[in-house]
Amino acid sequence: MSSLDRISGARLLARAEALARHSELPGGLTRVSLSPEYRAAADLVMGWMREAGMSARLDAIGNVAGRYEGERPGLPCLMLGSHLDTVRDAGRYDGMLGVISGIECVQALNASGTRLPFAIEVLGFTDEEGVRFGVSLLGSRALAGELDPGVLEAKDRDGVSMADAMRKFGLDPARVGEAARRPEEVHAYAELHIEQGPVLENEGLPVGAVTALNGYTRMRVSVEGTAGHAGTVPMPLRRDALAAAAECVLAVERIAGAGRDVVGTVGRLEALPGAGNVIPGAVRFTVDLRSSADAERERAAGEIESAFHAVASRRGVALELERTQEQGVTQCAPWLIEQFAEAIGAEGVPVRRLPSGAGHDGMALQTLAEFGMLFVRCTHGISHNPAEAITAEDAQTGARVLLRFIEGFRPKP
Amino acid sequence: MSSLDRISGARLLARAEALARHSELPGGLTRVSLSPEYRAAADLVMGWMREAGMSARLDAIGNVAGRYEGERPGLPCLMLGSHLDTVRDAGRYDGMLGVISGIECVQALNASGTRLPFAIEVLGFTDEEGVRFGVSLLGSRALAGELDPGVLEAKDRDGVSMADAMRKFGLDPARVGEAARRPEEVHAYAELHIEQGPVLENEGLPVGAVTALNGYTRMRVSVEGTAGHAGTVPMPLRRDALAAAAECVLAVERIAGAGRDVVGTVGRLEALPGAGNVIPGAVRFTVDLRSSADAERERAAGEIESAFHAVASRRGVALELERTQEQGVTQCAPWLIEQFAEAIGAEGVPVRRLPSGAGHDGMALQTLAEFGMLFVRCTHGISHNPAEAITAEDAQTGARVLLRFIEGFRPKP
Repeated sequence: MSSLDRISGARLLARAEALARHSELPGGLTRVSLSPEYRAAADLVMGWMREAGMSARLDAIGNVAGRYEGERPGLPCLMLGSHLDTVRDAGRYDGMLGVISGIECVQALNASGTRLPFAIEVLGFTDEEGVRFGVSLLGSRALAGELDPGVLEAKDRDGVSMADAMRKFGLDPARVGEAARRPEEVHAYAELHIEQGPVLENEGLPVGAVTALNGYTRMRVSVEGTAGHAGTVPMPLRRDALAAAAECVLAVERIAGAGRDVVGTVGRLEALPGAGNVIPGAVRFTVDLRSSADAERERAAGEIESAFHAVASRRGVALELERTQEQGVTQCAPWLIEQFAEAIGAEGVPVRRLPSGAGHDGMALQTLAEFGMLFVRCTHGISHNPAEAITAEDAQTGARVLLRFIEGFRPKP
Repeated sequence: MSSLDRISGARLLARAEALARHSELPGGLTRVSLSPEYRAAADLVMGWMREAGMSARLDAIGNVAGRYEGERPGLPCLMLGSHLDTVRDAGRYDGMLGVISGIECVQALNASGTRLPFAIEVLGFTDEEGVRFGVSLLGSRALAGELDPGVLEAKDRDGVSMADAMRKFGLDPARVGEAARRPEEVHAYAELHIEQGPVLENEGLPVGAVTALNGYTRMRVSVEGTAGHAGTVPMPLRRDALAAAAECVLAVERIAGAGRDVVGTVGRLEALPGAGNVIPGAVRFTVDLRSSADAERERAAGEIESAFHAVASRRGVALELERTQEQGVTQCAPWLIEQFAEAIGAEGVPVRRLPSGAGHDGMALQTLAEFGMLFVRCTHGISHNPAEAITAEDAQTGARVLLRFIEGFRPKP
C-alpha cells in the first residue's frame, strides 16, 4: 500500500469532529487559547501525533509541536501546521484541518516506513484568531521570535491578562521567548487550510495554490458620551454613545463597500452600562479592514478615521481610536507555490492559483521561513460560522496533495 | 425638640453612601435584585428600620418591609418607600433616598414619642429598574398581587432564571403570591424620589409635587443575519446583523427626536458572536420609549416598528420584535398632590407641580392604593449615572416635607 493510499478523508472528518467537542460553548464550538478546552484539544492532538510516530510537546507559549525525524535525527524541517484556537461559535475546519492533515501525512509516511532527507514538524498554533486578547497570530509570532512582550499584559473580556492565563495554563510568561525557533532549523512553512471563500467551489475545484494573503488593518475604538436616565433626558440634550457608534458602524460599511477590493467589519461592540433604561455612556468596538491592495486599504482606513472623528465632533462625544494591528499584503514564496502546483497537477486536478481573503499563521512566520499554502474547497465559502463544511472527498484530496508536496519537496536552492 | 428638628440631611447622605458600598462593581454602584449585595443592602436597611422603632422583614419576593404601628396595633397604613435595586453604574440616590427618608421620618416620630391614627410602613422595593430580568417594577407588582408568574422564568444575562435566583436568595418562588397586600390595609402610597430631570434646579426649588408619570413602551428586538469571516465575504453578499441594528438605533433616535414629547433609547445591545474578525450574525437590543402623551408614544412606537421592518427587509435579515412592557400615563391622586402641596407650602417653599419623565413603583401599586410623589432636586438633572448628586440641604428639606405630609395626612374621605 502506497503512503498516498493510507490517507483517509473519513478519518480527517472524524478527527475534526472529535476536536470540535472541546468547546466552552455546549452545542457549538468556541475554543480560545489557554483555556481548559484548548488544553483538552492540544492533548488530543498530541496523542494523534505520537500515534503517527512523532514526538509531541507543548512549547513555551502553548503551541502544540510534533516532530517526525528525517533520514537521521536533527535535520532541518519542513514545517506544516495551522491553528487550534477558534473564533466564537466557529466552524470545525478553520485551522484544525491543517493540523490533522499534517498528522495524516506523517502517519502515512511512518506506516510505510518512509524517512525523508529532512524532518517534518507539525505545529498546532495557539491564538491565531486573536479572539481572547484582541491580538492575533500569537503562537506563530512567538515561534518566529517576534512576539511583542507588551501583549502579555493584554486582557481578555474577564480582565485576565495573557500572562495570568499562561500561568494558569502551566506556562511561565517570563520564558515565552523560548518558543522562538531559528531560521536554519526550518526549510519552509507549508499550510493547508479551508479556503473560507467561494472561488474554488464556483470553479468546481477541490484544492488551489495560494499566491498571497490580503493585508489588514485592525482598530480598537472607544466612544465616550454621557450616561443618563432613559426617561428624563430630552433628546436634544443627549450625548448617546451608542447612537454615535451606530453611525460609525454604518460608515465602515459604506466606505469599505465603496472600494473595489476592501472589506470592513465591526465584529465586536459593547454598549455600557448596558441597561434598557439607561442612555449608553460608553461604547467600545473593533474595526477589521482587509484588502489585496495595500493602497486601497490605507485609503479606506483614513476615510473611516475621518468619518469617525466627524461623527464624534458633531455629536459632542469623545473618541479614542487606536490601530492595533496593521499588515500589508503578504506574498507566498514563488518556489513553494510552484511545488504545490506540481503536487496538485500530479493529483490530476487543474491548477488554480488564488489569493487569500483571510490572514494566516504564515504571515507571522516570515522572518523564520518562507511559506506556501494549499486551499481546500469549503461549502458556499462559509467560515467563522457553525455552518462551515467540507466533504470527506475534498479533505482526502487536500491531504493527498499535501503528501505529494511533502514527498516531492526540494528545499530552496 | 420637635420631630421636624430631628430630621438630618447629613445622616441621609451618609446612609446613601453606606448603601452605595454594597455593589457588584467595586468603585461604582451596581446592585441588581436577589444578589448578595442586594441582600447586604437589605440587611442594612432593616437594621436602620429597627433602630427607628419599626419591625422589619423581607417579604416573599425580597422587598424590605418595615412597619411602625399607629395609636393601636393593626391599623391600616400610610405606605412610604421606593426601591433598593439600581441600574448598572448607577447613582446613589435613585430609589434609596425614598427608603431612607421614610425611615428618617419614622425615626423622628418615634424619638418624639408620636403615634398617629394610622400605621406607617416603609417599603424598600426589589427590582424596580428591571435590570436583571428585563422586566421592571417586580417588587411593587408583587405587593399589588399583579406579578405575572411567567416572569419567574425570565433569565438574567448569565442564564439564571428569576425562580432560581429567588431560591438562591432563600425565597420560595411558589410562595411569591404571599407578597401581595390587600387594599384595605393601605390608605395610600407616598414616595419621595430625586427628580432625575432639570426642572426643579432650573427654577431654584428644592422640592416639587408630582402630578403624573409618563407612559412607556419597551421592546425587545432581535436581528438575525449571517455570521461569516471578516476577510473573505464580499460586502455585497453580507447579511451583517450589526449594520442592520445600527440603522435601527438611528431610527429610534430620529423618530423619538421628531416628536415634541417623546424620548427613545436603545440602552442595551449585544452583537454575537462578538469577535473582531467575524461578521456579526445576530444582535439583540432593547428599545425604551416614554412620553407624557400616550398618543404620541403610540405613534412613535408604530413608526419605529415600521422602520425596523423596512431595514430588515432591505437587508435580508430576520427581525423579531416584542413589546415587553407598555404603560399609559399614570396620574397621581389629586387629593395626595394637594396634601403634598400643603406640606411644601408649610415648609415655606413655593409649590411647584410637575410630571415625572421616569416611571416609579407607584405605577405598579395602583390596584392596591392611590399614590402621590414628592420630587427632590438633583444636580443638573443627572441620574442613572455615577455623577448623580443632591445636597444635604435638599435631602433635609425633602424629608421634612415628607414628615409634614405624614403628620398632616388625612385618608381619602
